[in-house]
Amino acid sequence: MKKNVLIIGAGGVAQVVAHKCAQNNDVLGDLHIASRTLSKCEAIIASVHEKGAMKGTGRFDAHAVDAMDTAAVAALIRETGAGIVINVGSAFVNMPVLEACLETGAAYMDTAIHEDPAKICETPPWYGNYEWKRRERCAEAGVTAILGVGFDPGVVNAYARLAADEYLDEVASIDIVDINAGSHGRWFSTNFDPEINFREFTGTVYSWQDGAWQANRMFEVGQEFDLPVVGRQKAYMTGHDEVHSLAANYPQADVRFWMGFSDHYINVFMVLKNLGLLSEQPVTTAEGLEVIPLKVVKAVLPDPSSLAPDYTGKTCIGDIVKGTKDGQPAEVFIYNVADHAEAYAEVGSQGISYTAGVPPVAAAILVAEGTWDVKKMVNVEELDPKPFLALLNRMGLPTRIKDAAGDRALEF
Amino acid sequence: MKKNVLIIGAGGVAQVVAHKCAQNNDVLGDLHIASRTLSKCEAIIASVHEKGAMKGTGRFDAHAVDAMDTAAVAALIRETGAGIVINVGSAFVNMPVLEACLETGAAYMDTAIHEDPAKICETPPWYGNYEWKRRERCAEAGVTAILGVGFDPGVVNAYARLAADEYLDEVASIDIVDINAGSHGRWFSTNFDPEINFREFTGTVYSWQDGAWQANRMFEVGQEFDLPVVGRQKAYMTGHDEVHSLAANYPQADVRFWMGFSDHYINVFMVLKNLGLLSEQPVTTAEGLEVIPLKVVKAVLPDPSSLAPDYTGKTCIGDIVKGTKDGQPAEVFIYNVADHAEAYAEVGSQGISYTAGVPPVAAAILVAEGTWDVKKMVNVEELDPKPFLALLNRMGLPTRIKDAAGDRALEF
Repeated sequence: MKKNVLIIGAGGVAQVVAHKCAQNNDVLGDLHIASRTLSKCEAIIASVHEKGAMKGTGRFDAHAVDAMDTAAVAALIRETGAGIVINVGSAFVNMPVLEACLETGAAYMDTAIHEDPAKICETPPWYGNYEWKRRERCAEAGVTAILGVGFDPGVVNAYARLAADEYLDEVASIDIVDINAGSHGRWFSTNFDPEINFREFTGTVYSWQDGAWQANRMFEVGQEFDLPVVGRQKAYMTGHDEVHSLAANYPQADVRFWMGFSDHYINVFMVLKNLGLLSEQPVTTAEGLEVIPLKVVKAVLPDPSSLAPDYTGKTCIGDIVKGTKDGQPAEVFIYNVADHAEAYAEVGSQGISYTAGVPPVAAAILVAEGTWDVKKMVNVEELDPKPFLALLNRMGLPTRIKDAAGDRALEF
Repeated sequence: MKKNVLIIGAGGVAQVVAHKCAQNNDVLGDLHIASRTLSKCEAIIASVHEKGAMKGTGRFDAHAVDAMDTAAVAALIRETGAGIVINVGSAFVNMPVLEACLETGAAYMDTAIHEDPAKICETPPWYGNYEWKRRERCAEAGVTAILGVGFDPGVVNAYARLAADEYLDEVASIDIVDINAGSHGRWFSTNFDPEINFREFTGTVYSWQDGAWQANRMFEVGQEFDLPVVGRQKAYMTGHDEVHSLAANYPQADVRFWMGFSDHYINVFMVLKNLGLLSEQPVTTAEGLEVIPLKVVKAVLPDPSSLAPDYTGKTCIGDIVKGTKDGQPAEVFIYNVADHAEAYAEVGSQGISYTAGVPPVAAAILVAEGTWDVKKMVNVEELDPKPFLALLNRMGLPTRIKDAAGDRALEF
């Protein structure tokens, strides 16, 4: 039984994590949140208290920490007595925070793959570059590390596992589709950290097909999907974390990730990319100032967390899994639909942050209760999906399935 | 008789000015070029010698100077014995350089209006904000200052004067049209300093119509023009220097400036502008670095001077002047067509730099010979246009006219 949670990060996803931890503090114990900027943590805690989100009495404290500094994070883990660290800081801090968990024995979870600020899109499988190199050390130290336990990656990995376990005998393909059919009302904005958002799309698009990595350019391969609630939507094959673990765990299946983009988004993206403004490599201005263009683009774009109050519409994210069942071709679509305005009403964040922030709290509850406290490093599809999806049904992210038998809610 | 020329600036236009001064050093005397970066000046002088452009024996020396520093520029004028300063540096240095001319008595000329780096598009008439405030001091000191003597502003002002003097009794409208039908072969580039280029289009579009300043937004008013050589071209009403002096000198006429833009240029511009990346006001990155977005855009775009070797096609710039002649409605189009590849072959620059850089050298020759050494501050339409256009006919920018009598070359 692990207790006490330390949240690393204070962005839109951290806001959701904080509210959901508060709603479950009877199981999770004392709560702590830490980022470089103390005032951001304090603002999140204030919003938790405004909503009366704390289920039971208990602490929720703010801390300032440089998450790139393993020793500082380890000291904070010891100081707070945190048994579980939910890392929803920048993707650049994953390895320093994981190292702090290895040092202290705390359970670790994150929602996105580790990135080196100076590198875009490294060799596949991406998890092999940083995370999996620490797999043996986690096992030796008995440290539970659950990688990529947001929605995608995360819930979609559990959907793939569920499809493979329950609905198909053989899996031939896993197509993860992520559609945001919502509207933020701004001329242009990314839905989460622009730096991370754009970095996702500037590199090679890796997919796993015919038992090998296939490389494409962004927006090179697109198709229209007809999905529940959101209807017909154009989506493009995109490089994404979960492809890199699912390909390892289901090597016989094709694994692809598809993300929906409007023509407007693509136009803005292509202009910025073609001009070199999405580069993570510094340029020097005529005045001699060294600047990373992508960081300037981030500075001029809306803060994604500022979109929440006006965000309307729904997201639909799920897995189209094809294969055979009882010798016949079979196909299932396991998915969730989330509503931006409902998310804002509950936790003060838009739907993209909500879908990313609820799952790690469900995972933390499962670790606290022991169900998922596996004392090694895993990706989500290596864990039993049912208790996780059962919790999410209760926590605001219900699972549905659409197959030959119809479109229906799934209970576990 | 004034002698010895100091060129301020070392960009694409300065390259043209240097070559044209060299071709006329028998009249102009010793030549000097100065900018912040000595090596850029040396490279320009080297290209002059490579082309064997020096007409007679004589000096052509490079100097480093901070042109924002009036005292340093004045010292350099004294050191070089320059009687004429051709300022083709950034538009931000105009007033410091003019002050140095006022201090030393050297003649001054530039090709673009003075700008304050922190301000976009000030109150019309623009010349009233900086230049014309020094008109009395120029007259008192007997300092010749010829403002805006590039192509546009510059030659087009002379065209307007010529139309008013020779072809019309009353002028009802002056529409200056600037079409670049050339191709640089890059995904996107500005043809001159991106900072100055974009600043031109981010502010209010001022035109002088019905005896008053009219304000529009950029790309709000467009029309197609059918022009000699370049054919049918879409152009948009644009804020531009010469509107602000021509409106003062021909207040009874409507004065508008039209610039040709491709849909691609407009798309890139609108994306950058709507995102805030063309702002001249600093933003702060998440890392705390203060940066002016426009300067980063400039840093990632191609150096306009690098376009020259591959540039093909032609420019067409001229004045459509309408009014009455002998009691009848009359219209003339006075214009020049320049060729990018021919410009590169002669002086190593593309056509945009060529059209901007040849006229100030013609003006310098007229000042050196005394014809235009008026010992006061003037805009180009206040000077006799014929000796200027006669010189330009010989220097590579021949004037043509199209009216009821046909399309023909003009001789003076």
